[in-house]
Amino acid sequence: MADERPIDAPPARAPADPRLRGFADRVTLERAQAWIDGRAVRLPPVEVDAAVAAGRVLAAPVVAAADHPPAPRAGEDGYAVRAADTVGASTYNPLSLRPEGAAGPLGPGAAALVAAGTSLPQGADAVLGFDAAQEAGGGVECIAPAAPGGGVEARGRQARAGAILAAAAQRLRAQDAAWLASLGVARVSAVGRPRIRIAVAGAKREGGAAAPDAHLLLLAALVARDGGELEPVPVASGLRDALRRALAPPAPDLVIVTGRTGAGPDDDAPGALAELGELAIHGVALRPGGSAALGTLAGITAALLPGDPLACLVVYELIAGRLVRAAAGLAPGLPHRRRDARLARKLVSTVGVTEVCQVRLAAGEAEPLGAHDFGGLATAARADGFVVVPAPLEGYPAGEAVTVHEY
Amino acid sequence: MADERPIDAPPARAPADPRLRGFADRVTLERAQAWIDGRAVRLPPVEVDAAVAAGRVLAAPVVAAADHPPAPRAGEDGYAVRAADTVGASTYNPLSLRPEGAAGPLGPGAAALVAAGTSLPQGADAVLGFDAAQEAGGGVECIAPAAPGGGVEARGRQARAGAILAAAAQRLRAQDAAWLASLGVARVSAVGRPRIRIAVAGAKREGGAAAPDAHLLLLAALVARDGGELEPVPVASGLRDALRRALAPPAPDLVIVTGRTGAGPDDDAPGALAELGELAIHGVALRPGGSAALGTLAGITAALLPGDPLACLVVYELIAGRLVRAAAGLAPGLPHRRRDARLARKLVSTVGVTEVCQVRLAAGEAEPLGAHDFGGLATAARADGFVVVPAPLEGYPAGEAVTVHEY
Repeated sequence: MADERPIDAPPARAPADPRLRGFADRVTLERAQAWIDGRAVRLPPVEVDAAVAAGRVLAAPVVAAADHPPAPRAGEDGYAVRAADTVGASTYNPLSLRPEGAAGPLGPGAAALVAAGTSLPQGADAVLGFDAAQEAGGGVECIAPAAPGGGVEARGRQARAGAILAAAAQRLRAQDAAWLASLGVARVSAVGRPRIRIAVAGAKREGGAAAPDAHLLLLAALVARDGGELEPVPVASGLRDALRRALAPPAPDLVIVTGRTGAGPDDDAPGALAELGELAIHGVALRPGGSAALGTLAGITAALLPGDPLACLVVYELIAGRLVRAAAGLAPGLPHRRRDARLARKLVSTVGVTEVCQVRLAAGEAEPLGAHDFGGLATAARADGFVVVPAPLEGYPAGEAVTVHEY
Repeated sequence: MADERPIDAPPARAPADPRLRGFADRVTLERAQAWIDGRAVRLPPVEVDAAVAAGRVLAAPVVAAADHPPAPRAGEDGYAVRAADTVGASTYNPLSLRPEGAAGPLGPGAAALVAAGTSLPQGADAVLGFDAAQEAGGGVECIAPAAPGGGVEARGRQARAGAILAAAAQRLRAQDAAWLASLGVARVSAVGRPRIRIAVAGAKREGGAAAPDAHLLLLAALVARDGGELEPVPVASGLRDALRRALAPPAPDLVIVTGRTGAGPDDDAPGALAELGELAIHGVALRPGGSAALGTLAGITAALLPGDPLACLVVYELIAGRLVRAAAGLAPGLPHRRRDARLARKLVSTVGVTEVCQVRLAAGEAEPLGAHDFGGLATAARADGFVVVPAPLEGYPAGEAVTVHEY
């Protein structure tokens, strides 16, 4: 019988326990990514107030319900006129128009004071600014001719009824949300916000009681950037209890555990996941981040991130974050701005392992920052971005053009 | 007597009232910027929890109080050993070491199981990973020699006592705050957050009751980006009342009014400012944004931004925002990322007026987006950034290299 597993499926057997033995077989980064991508689902749309929609991804286009403006209006402060009445006006031939109110229809030979943005009186077809028309001796003296439509904001100039104001899948910026609000759009259909629960099981490096904060601070910022919300789960009663709490309704879209993923005797996070759910992958050919694990818990995807904060960051960005971004309606790949740069010096990498190297940018060059052998955020705190070295390469020579993902 | 006013001071006489007459003499953008820069003061430092310091600007460097780690620790999961005991070990010549606990001093010929990040037992000077050492038959079988210091994270490797962990004037990113937290830094000295009060006096264009929201949405996002906080002041009881409320303690660092700045009959914001405080500048040779005004109110700087949302955005970015950024400890200039691009087509500008042109980026080219004659955010909502055309120029030809400030 043929093997029917798709090519990117993880091995059918459970990952070997690396404790006290080390990782016998790590999966490729691509396989880990394919596994998480296979579980990523864009969330269903929700109705959101346009006023708080900045940062949200539209689930459906926003369509103009009517013309904006709905009728021609003054494009500047000045006098509404009939253009035909101003033909021949100049400083040598000032014409005097009769002042009228802006509310009623404008009679022939008349001018009505209007403020920018207010409706034109019926009959008017142009607005003369105060450089061309001013009150003088009880009349309005006009010293330049108006072109028909001059100074007038035509009906529908901002947007035509039926026009797409913002496209589906677009992430609204503040100015986009402000624009929609200014057009009277009250609500929009947006992709739901992924809910991520996190249990900080251990932060072994850079010790001290404060270390778990680093995981929460880091991941809260990254998850928010990716359109999601991070909810911490207490771990005081043990990891198994925390995993159960993490599933409490409303169900999360992803459960993250940080720490306790390695080969040490106390690295019990993968075991806890295997016990309460399914451990699909443990160990990825990625550096830092090689002890990452993936699995499910009552049908919900779980990602176990290493306790070292830099490895935690890297595994979130390259693996777990893909699910968050896809759920939020964003592209799953790395969301950083990219910049092409030449390497200031040689960058050495291990063949067979995808390496993520922190770099500093200076004068258009990317300078690789030290080794990350002992992890920690010290390097990332000095970095402007990072370079991903694919597994087949043993690095890059100095001067090589690389893509920097900028922080 | 010589004129002792500095060259960049505004005219000593009060600005002329442009209502029903138009702007007789607008000041240059540079003069308006010099006026606001002359009133910008970096706020005094405040103590802030490191855990919530992301986005804050440091008022003083953060210095490591001790070495991190404070003592050598295991850099990986494995066995702590004395390197000298492993000389000559290989797969052909496995050496057996005596298992000991990690708590006590490590005896000669012994190995102690350690987890990455935990202290080395006294006497140990290397850690062998599980690829080099594993338990076998009651002993620890070692198949590779350890180099002294191998697998060990030396004392102070993350940071040395006295080292600068983060520099003064640096704006902390999430990873920087996380790093400080992971090193046990509890509090940092940060520049205060500027408090900006805003009264939405009028939003004349893109009518409808929702339009004022556009000002608040837009400016709240921009002020937050610039390190400040925006507090709306109700205007239901009139603009003069709103201006008085805007001064309520704790005193703001800037008062912003949006709308009612132009030449129309109802443009009473500059008059209100002149009545309750001092109107220093009204009218700037800037497009959009030419009706902007600046002044003071009980010693507090006030900026009057045009009601058109796009002009409001431009005047905030180029003028009012400078004070916010400087108060927050940031560089006062435009904070956008810059990108060099060639113009996809000719960009026409008026000589004597600084023009801000919205552009869309496509295939490395900057495409100028329509005219902004009638303002509105429609253009900014389609734009990827903007180009600033200095007042002396009449624009740029197609193909010209320009700097795009990216949204």
